[in-house]
Amino acid sequence: MFYHDNELQYDVEVEEPNPYFAKMLQQAIGGAEGEMRVALQYMFQAFAVPASKQKYRTLLMETAAEELGHIEMLATAVAKNLQGAPEEMREAARDDAVIDAMMSGGQPRQALSAGLHAMPVDSNGVPFSGNYVVASGNLAADMYANVMAESTGRLLATRLYEFTDDPGMKDMLAYLIARDTMHQNQWHAALEELGETVPVPASFPQEKENQEHDYEFMSTFREEHEDPGEAWTDGPSFDGKGEFSFGTQPGGGTPDLQETIEEMYNEASDGQ
Amino acid sequence: MFYHDNELQYDVEVEEPNPYFAKMLQQAIGGAEGEMRVALQYMFQAFAVPASKQKYRTLLMETAAEELGHIEMLATAVAKNLQGAPEEMREAARDDAVIDAMMSGGQPRQALSAGLHAMPVDSNGVPFSGNYVVASGNLAADMYANVMAESTGRLLATRLYEFTDDPGMKDMLAYLIARDTMHQNQWHAALEELGETVPVPASFPQEKENQEHDYEFMSTFREEHEDPGEAWTDGPSFDGKGEFSFGTQPGGGTPDLQETIEEMYNEASDGQ
Amino acid sequence: MFYHDNELQYDVEVEEPNPYFAKMLQQAIGGAEGEMRVALQYMFQAFAVPASKQKYRTLLMETAAEELGHIEMLATAVAKNLQGAPEEMREAARDDAVIDAMMSGGQPRQALSAGLHAMPVDSNGVPFSGNYVVASGNLAADMYANVMAESTGRLLATRLYEFTDDPGMKDMLAYLIARDTMHQNQWHAALEELGETVPVPASFPQEKENQEHDYEFMSTFREEHEDPGEAWTDGPSFDGKGEFSFGTQPGGGTPDLQETIEEMYNEASDGQ
Amino acid sequence: MFYHDNELQYDVEVEEPNPYFAKMLQQAIGGAEGEMRVALQYMFQAFAVPASKQKYRTLLMETAAEELGHIEMLATAVAKNLQGAPEEMREAARDDAVIDAMMSGGQPRQALSAGLHAMPVDSNGVPFSGNYVVASGNLAADMYANVMAESTGRLLATRLYEFTDDPGMKDMLAYLIARDTMHQNQWHAALEELGETVPVPASFPQEKENQEHDYEFMSTFREEHEDPGEAWTDGPSFDGKGEFSFGTQPGGGTPDLQETIEEMYNEASDGQ
Amino acid sequence: MFYHDNELQYDVEVEEPNPYFAKMLQQAIGGAEGEMRVALQYMFQAFAVPASKQKYRTLLMETAAEELGHIEMLATAVAKNLQGAPEEMREAARDDAVIDAMMSGGQPRQALSAGLHAMPVDSNGVPFSGNYVVASGNLAADMYANVMAESTGRLLATRLYEFTDDPGMKDMLAYLIARDTMHQNQWHAALEELGETVPVPASFPQEKENQEHDYEFMSTFREEHEDPGEAWTDGPSFDGKGEFSFGTQPGGGTPDLQETIEEMYNEASDGQ
Amino acid sequence: MFYHDNELQYDVEVEEPNPYFAKMLQQAIGGAEGEMRVALQYMFQAFAVPASKQKYRTLLMETAAEELGHIEMLATAVAKNLQGAPEEMREAARDDAVIDAMMSGGQPRQALSAGLHAMPVDSNGVPFSGNYVVASGNLAADMYANVMAESTGRLLATRLYEFTDDPGMKDMLAYLIARDTMHQNQWHAALEELGETVPVPASFPQEKENQEHDYEFMSTFREEHEDPGEAWTDGPSFDGKGEFSFGTQPGGGTPDLQETIEEMYNEASDGQ
Repeated sequence: MFYHDNELQYDVEVEEPNPYFAKMLQQAIGGAEGEMRVALQYMFQAFAVPASKQKYRTLLMETAAEELGHIEMLATAVAKNLQGAPEEMREAARDDAVIDAMMSGGQPRQALSAGLHAMPVDSNGVPFSGNYVVASGNLAADMYANVMAESTGRLLATRLYEFTDDPGMKDMLAYLIARDTMHQNQWHAALEELGETVPVPASFPQEKENQEHDYEFMSTFREEHEDPGEAWTDGPSFDGKGEFSFGTQPGGGTPDLQETIEEMYNEASDGQ
Repeated sequence: MFYHDNELQYDVEVEEPNPYFAKMLQQAIGGAEGEMRVALQYMFQAFAVPASKQKYRTLLMETAAEELGHIEMLATAVAKNLQGAPEEMREAARDDAVIDAMMSGGQPRQALSAGLHAMPVDSNGVPFSGNYVVASGNLAADMYANVMAESTGRLLATRLYEFTDDPGMKDMLAYLIARDTMHQNQWHAALEELGETVPVPASFPQEKENQEHDYEFMSTFREEHEDPGEAWTDGPSFDGKGEFSFGTQPGGGTPDLQETIEEMYNEASDGQ
Repeated sequence: MFYHDNELQYDVEVEEPNPYFAKMLQQAIGGAEGEMRVALQYMFQAFAVPASKQKYRTLLMETAAEELGHIEMLATAVAKNLQGAPEEMREAARDDAVIDAMMSGGQPRQALSAGLHAMPVDSNGVPFSGNYVVASGNLAADMYANVMAESTGRLLATRLYEFTDDPGMKDMLAYLIARDTMHQNQWHAALEELGETVPVPASFPQEKENQEHDYEFMSTFREEHEDPGEAWTDGPSFDGKGEFSFGTQPGGGTPDLQETIEEMYNEASDGQ
Repeated sequence: MFYHDNELQYDVEVEEPNPYFAKMLQQAIGGAEGEMRVALQYMFQAFAVPASKQKYRTLLMETAAEELGHIEMLATAVAKNLQGAPEEMREAARDDAVIDAMMSGGQPRQALSAGLHAMPVDSNGVPFSGNYVVASGNLAADMYANVMAESTGRLLATRLYEFTDDPGMKDMLAYLIARDTMHQNQWHAALEELGETVPVPASFPQEKENQEHDYEFMSTFREEHEDPGEAWTDGPSFDGKGEFSFGTQPGGGTPDLQETIEEMYNEASDGQ
Repeated sequence: MFYHDNELQYDVEVEEPNPYFAKMLQQAIGGAEGEMRVALQYMFQAFAVPASKQKYRTLLMETAAEELGHIEMLATAVAKNLQGAPEEMREAARDDAVIDAMMSGGQPRQALSAGLHAMPVDSNGVPFSGNYVVASGNLAADMYANVMAESTGRLLATRLYEFTDDPGMKDMLAYLIARDTMHQNQWHAALEELGETVPVPASFPQEKENQEHDYEFMSTFREEHEDPGEAWTDGPSFDGKGEFSFGTQPGGGTPDLQETIEEMYNEASDGQ
Repeated sequence: MFYHDNELQYDVEVEEPNPYFAKMLQQAIGGAEGEMRVALQYMFQAFAVPASKQKYRTLLMETAAEELGHIEMLATAVAKNLQGAPEEMREAARDDAVIDAMMSGGQPRQALSAGLHAMPVDSNGVPFSGNYVVASGNLAADMYANVMAESTGRLLATRLYEFTDDPGMKDMLAYLIARDTMHQNQWHAALEELGETVPVPASFPQEKENQEHDYEFMSTFREEHEDPGEAWTDGPSFDGKGEFSFGTQPGGGTPDLQETIEEMYNEASDGQ
């Protein structure tokens, strides 16, 4: 179960409020690369860990709780970018500044739906979707999903870093980038500890898959080519269980669907 | 640009049509782990590769075209599971069999919207979303996304393999599982060739991130604990650029938001 | 503006309540082929008609109001399929009948969220989306969208007709199918009256489009073929403004994208 | 910021695993009436509270953390309903029981995507959406949203209570129903403390609204009626600021839209 | 069933067309707080009212029809903000004015998809979703949902009021704000008439819920606190059926999930 | 199955990169009127064609492959509009130009998620949805869906044509507009060849529909009118199978729903 206290996880200061940056920050809250995704992803992954692997449940829950704190930080950053100026200044500048910017290029719902605060949506304004969450029941697949989530998440944070000159925002983002560095490292470390995990799921017996095609690079070029001799067409496969080769699509005959039962009314016309 | 021919990429036979399995197969077509996702993901990744890295564009496009053929195979499999029985049998069995199954536990839209054919939706009936596609502009992030997509995709295919006893379906899935094996291997091989890619993006200067916290495991347990001595709390970090440590959330003060401008009407009551 | 009265537009009787059919009917309410879509589509199309074309606004609004009544009829049909049995019977049968059916193959939210009533979702349970609505501002495009909406709508209704043996439901669907017949006819009649509308938009000057390729069937077969002599490869074009021909994709050079600005951190690895 | 420990908030036991009930429980996790919604709603509301109203921020965060624990409980309940039977029994019964049930009427993705665990989707399989969250910036609007969320949430829980005979599940739901009782009470208590909050926002000056129509019940019946003398057509208004009356829609002239600029190509046909 | 006439419900005039405001107005059409939501919500609630409570069905349908007229007004307002300027002026100003504004900060689809008209989407461009609609089958829950919908709807309208200086728009919004005042009042009046409705559903027997925890405020603070003596921790509960108290989460043991059946391939690695 | 080569289908040149136009182009990629929709629509339609109608399968697949090439062209156009300027210029202008434009009015995710490249979303930023695809199993319904898709698609392309002055973009759009001309013509030609297709589905026996109402224009005006003598109220129907007439809604009695079973807790209050 969960607890909280009143503090933010790390300082969130904004010197020069910027409504456009408030819009950009939404990507790190409700976007596919954002903190809601990782917080919930680690949580749902943890919820599926059997008692026999408690240590991984703990690992996932520790990080899930940390990510919840990142949502809080970013939501605070959005609010400060939309309202942080001293009251007098804001009053005076209102028509030209915040409201004007919201009108022409801000995210309308931050004002209209949330009264100048953060929302669980991305920078394009699209709501967070539960389908961003990957929790497969298989820890190796989950760890790769986590490496990927932290990779695109850190990439996003570095881009946001370049979109702002505000020292407070740069400091907050430098912290979040560091945490993404750590998280990438910890998921890789967990993967390593899990043992041989390629291909995922490693527990599926290799003899059940089609072994004619499991290490063959399949060229789909219109004109057939010679083997280009790439790292993925020659030599031992990455997982050490086969040898890369170079081929083309095997071909499986023309599809031969029957007519559907009459009751579907698939016939196009009167005469048929 | 793209071309096609009339053949399927690999055989698709169904001996015992099964409307429930037709529903399950939708996950491999329009689901988050499905073939529409990877086909489009590799395509959009390819579209973003600069001319200077043409070899990766080719790699991605080759596989994108292969995956398009998988969608075709799976859609054929759905149709055959919904209508493959000999006409006479189906006519006789209709009320008890296909239609009855669709009523009680099939996917209604396969019948109602598609006349007993496949749809670009998942096994729960949820439409494919463009937000499943990860194409970040950074090849390392993209390759991790691809490893992950093929990991969850192969996991899905192995589960589908267990949900059917039909030899044709098992043969088709054994082929798709093999291709997922290959694809996991090829993306790993490409990652290796790209050089040092952890943390992604590797081109962000380490000194710009907050180096106090970039290799620290942050415990969020309610009661503080001792360092458990895990692979992610001690020793050299996975990327070799730091040393794991064990700590807690730094804390950043209580959020201190001002009141919003009056024009937002955030005041709750009359008296305020 | 709008008015209502207490009557349904047409009788809705259910002799044998059937929770599975209640699920199926949702497609005709909140589905892509359903009544919410056409009601709102005709409304939004009407809202865009200029005063100079008032007659088409009227035509659209008349039908929009009719379609609102269809939603009401179908929602009543859902409720009756979920609860129509006499109170005593239902009480007795409850565990085996309605609730049992909802558990194993009904639409869970009709029970859990709506207390055994209709919802603005489709038969797969997916919520109605505003993006189903086509209202383009161009009446010819809108009329084609309407012909299409009524075509898939009537197809859906005929399939539903085959999924039920209940006389009340068959009577209601025979009415709805008839209305779809009329609506297809009226949109075609309106199209005819609008004059030459192909290609839409007919007001774009033909000389501005690329006239080398505007009546050429472009074969994308891997192996080049001879002109198959189809109705779409030879002879005068449907719009009478050109001559069909048979060709292949022209080709436009290899894409030559530059590297992105450094601030995007698109570089994959350390060394680059 | 947030913390956690290893315990569940309350016991979660399942005696008779039931895959159909596992599907139903998803509504309480990822549905519009579910725990993800309230957890995130209270969090985003808290994130928008200014420092001057800290007490309400605390109230909201306390409950948000509690709701996170409910997600954990429900996800545990889903897993136990899908896999709780003793290993030997499950092994034997597999083909007839869990997998069979998932095939014919379970939620496919609980098996295919999550390996027999919970997902952030609703009982129809639709992913959680960030747009379920209401956090308006105005505490009175937020409190009404919370009363409503807990009302539909408690209604859902009571219905789930009737869909199961499992004593463990009934005990868990009796706890969750009790918590919804408390939460309804606490949001009402907070509303009362906020002072006069009707109409929301109470801070908008009454003289700015159209005072001819602000307490008039507007009948839209096709045939005009006499005032029916209802609680909403006569007597003092609920907010005590006006007097209810009975009238009809005022009418505002026929819409008089001009033609759109030519560059939109809204003209339907050639001749125009 | 439904009827219409050619008039708007209330005047819609725009003196100074403003494409940015046209974007903002979309929130009141297709947004979570908008008129499509309330029109459809009241309709679906009405569709679920049994004959024995006809009076509430009438109340809901009356208001649903009124709200349909609000959609029409707002769509007219959008069109006039996008095209209302005199033809000559618009012709001259086109490149700098409407099209230019649409390019840099308008809502692209209002131009590209709708030819400068309204769409069933919100101000962020997100399509209306059927899942915004709350129609629970329980009138008390529905009435709270309606109070909430009109509260956030009125809040939205007051914010839009501040985003415009156009007298026509201010007049239209003053009317809509007044109607929201009335609707809040009428739903409250109906709630009052329904009798004791807290907690919703009031018909669930209190003895079936967990009475140890149904009036206890559960603090989730990391460090345990003393009872703060708030309106929601002490004294009689709002519903008069209990006494508020102050406590902490009870705790329910560590989750003890078993391993999943092998066929799910949840095992992470080779060795396991 | 599918193949590709390295060339674009047609030239894509951008002289004056324009981030706002890059946002607009997204509509033609991932929008409801875009190329992803038609490519996938023709593919899924082809997947459902029985062997007996192979010629239509070929027609659909030929065009599907062509449309895939259009996605590639448009994605290239987006990238060039976001990054096409000579490196030195871009470096210098960066803060004022691309990044500045992205901040204030570009599509944030093109930068933040894709590193200045195209995404599978529309111009409002909304992800592509599988529910845009219409593949009904009935070729006549499908052909009407295709006429409509190409009509709204061509309308979109002509509007985009007016939003740009760049000669490269105008040339690319003139090509795409020409292709839409061809595609509208080819689908019309196919419809003609299919024979009598109105009303769709033409295979449903006319005597089963309600023949009292199948050619009657149903006026829903509040006040009854005389027959206006329009093309849709008088004379032979478009399909030649009936005679248009003019009438009003038949009326079907007041809905008479029973109370729902108690277990749904639909009772609103205590006393009931």
